[in-house]
Amino acid sequence: MKVAIVYHSGYGHTAEQAKSVARGAQSVAGTDAQVISVAEGDVPWGELEKADAIIFGSPTYMGTVSAPFKKFMDDSSKPWFEQKWKDKLAAGFTNSGSQSGDKLNTLQTLAVFAAQHGMIWVGLGLMPGNNSSKGSPEDLNRIGSYLGAMAQSNTDQGPDQGPTASDLKTAEHLGKRVATLAARFK
Amino acid sequence: MKVAIVYHSGYGHTAEQAKSVARGAQSVAGTDAQVISVAEGDVPWGELEKADAIIFGSPTYMGTVSAPFKKFMDDSSKPWFEQKWKDKLAAGFTNSGSQSGDKLNTLQTLAVFAAQHGMIWVGLGLMPGNNSSKGSPEDLNRIGSYLGAMAQSNTDQGPDQGPTASDLKTAEHLGKRVATLAARFK
Amino acid sequence: MKVAIVYHSGYGHTAEQAKSVARGAQSVAGTDAQVISVAEGDVPWGELEKADAIIFGSPTYMGTVSAPFKKFMDDSSKPWFEQKWKDKLAAGFTNSGSQSGDKLNTLQTLAVFAAQHGMIWVGLGLMPGNNSSKGSPEDLNRIGSYLGAMAQSNTDQGPDQGPTASDLKTAEHLGKRVATLAARFK
Amino acid sequence: MKVAIVYHSGYGHTAEQAKSVARGAQSVAGTDAQVISVAEGDVPWGELEKADAIIFGSPTYMGTVSAPFKKFMDDSSKPWFEQKWKDKLAAGFTNSGSQSGDKLNTLQTLAVFAAQHGMIWVGLGLMPGNNSSKGSPEDLNRIGSYLGAMAQSNTDQGPDQGPTASDLKTAEHLGKRVATLAARFK
Repeated sequence: MKVAIVYHSGYGHTAEQAKSVARGAQSVAGTDAQVISVAEGDVPWGELEKADAIIFGSPTYMGTVSAPFKKFMDDSSKPWFEQKWKDKLAAGFTNSGSQSGDKLNTLQTLAVFAAQHGMIWVGLGLMPGNNSSKGSPEDLNRIGSYLGAMAQSNTDQGPDQGPTASDLKTAEHLGKRVATLAARFK
Repeated sequence: MKVAIVYHSGYGHTAEQAKSVARGAQSVAGTDAQVISVAEGDVPWGELEKADAIIFGSPTYMGTVSAPFKKFMDDSSKPWFEQKWKDKLAAGFTNSGSQSGDKLNTLQTLAVFAAQHGMIWVGLGLMPGNNSSKGSPEDLNRIGSYLGAMAQSNTDQGPDQGPTASDLKTAEHLGKRVATLAARFK
Repeated sequence: MKVAIVYHSGYGHTAEQAKSVARGAQSVAGTDAQVISVAEGDVPWGELEKADAIIFGSPTYMGTVSAPFKKFMDDSSKPWFEQKWKDKLAAGFTNSGSQSGDKLNTLQTLAVFAAQHGMIWVGLGLMPGNNSSKGSPEDLNRIGSYLGAMAQSNTDQGPDQGPTASDLKTAEHLGKRVATLAARFK
Repeated sequence: MKVAIVYHSGYGHTAEQAKSVARGAQSVAGTDAQVISVAEGDVPWGELEKADAIIFGSPTYMGTVSAPFKKFMDDSSKPWFEQKWKDKLAAGFTNSGSQSGDKLNTLQTLAVFAAQHGMIWVGLGLMPGNNSSKGSPEDLNRIGSYLGAMAQSNTDQGPDQGPTASDLKTAEHLGKRVATLAARFK
């Protein structure tokens, strides 16, 4: 089973999230997780066509996916036109400097994009953490997202210090969930 | 296999859509499609818990789901808290008087709602119709929606005259698609 | 000048936010801020018609505005039909247990709703806080919202302990901003 | 008074919409409407800083603004950081091949973007057309949008044949509305 993680990262934070998603997917027996950066020139469209699931990741810039990730989305109009990704599983993740910071608009946009491709959307599948007097930022899903995995990285720190360990574990959970469901669906 | 269609309808147009969705689901061998109006008093929560897929339908009123449908959503916080609907398939449909008319916000809200329940979202899976010089309002998916099924009914006509036949066939397609995927997923 | 704050609160947290918004509006010379709970029976539609600005507030329940607030939205179809609120200023606020927790979908829904009424949408007008190594949950706009004011209250604590002081000051800022702009616009 | 219309157009349809918006703005006495294509290389940031209102326009590609328009949005992080556009009026328009076609997600994204810049969002301010047995595609606001102006152009026809005359009049209405409100606000 093949899970592709397609992402853009401007400063490295979203790349860390992508690696964690891949680690989660890879932890499911029989899964081949492939991480693809859209910034590295040509997108391997053939690999995407072979995948059972594609997980999309982008930082949230100015309220939605980054321009380089949007370019990938626009370029995907060819496989879209032939509905090459139909009935594959899809999921999404995003990072930004703010705790909430319009990240939901990014995930909603990715879910709409996946629906255009005829894909089936898998959410995070975790209850929110850090939402009670007993909670803390160390909780899984500390930001409280459902549609996909959210992460927050301080704007004055590099990818060695953010996203937090809890956000990376949350991303790992998403990868594992998608791979598990893809196996079942296949 | 069991597919539940849970809907609210203020004037009967969305009820017609719900019936078409059910007809589509029922057309898949081995499917039991159950239509549930949230206006008819108590919601049969046990039936929803037994379903393999739940399809949500609401008119778009003032930009999103109707208040009676929202009441159903709020009341579902009990099964949500125990994640009783986790990994079920979900889908959505909506009707309004306008051609576009903020119906997408309703479908996005239903997709977010389904993600809160840990459900897996199935979109319409149809390319848009009525978008070229060869198209017409008789086309399947004439409104051009992806996340779910949209319908439009004239504000001065009853449910005997709207939604259009093309919108009802589009709704039927959604029901059939969800039942087919639910069988595969099961 | 008249600013109306129309809100629903299930457990009292959003009511605290509403009071803070009113305090901010009232701090602008010449402003009469009126707080209206939609749960208290009849909505004083005539008062809303006289207002220069209306600020909408609702908890985020199951991904969007609460059912009682949605009932108010649906009931507003009468003034909508006559566009009685056209060119008034509008703004929004919301509270939930999660840090992010789909609150953006609530604010987007309120902005679409205001646009249906022909109103002009005023966002929060604050840069995000708590997004760097020097930030803290005590910062103004600690959740990092732009479209309106967000607050977070722990799910196991009453309105005497949440929203946080920073969230209430953020709400106050929104009220002050709307009143200031309403004066200028008038 | 200065109104800037900033847009991207892939095949010329959105450019027609942009010209109509400008014509509407220009029709208000004392208004200087400037049309800026983000594809023409350098964005005249100084002109935008001097504008009283900025109207954003993009085709809807794969569910949201086009990649070239997103690049403009990302590049605007400099004026954003200094909140150079704070309290300016903002509005939006979009074109796509489908009747509805996820155009609302584009407008919601533009409204969130404007809120990040501290701008004040002006919607279309028109009731929907083509929504009753007496309506037709020749109606103003035939697609039924509120948050901004929507247009639809057939995918097999050039900008000489689309958007429709009604969509262009709708765009003109938006330009006139924004210029009128900008004059009042100034």
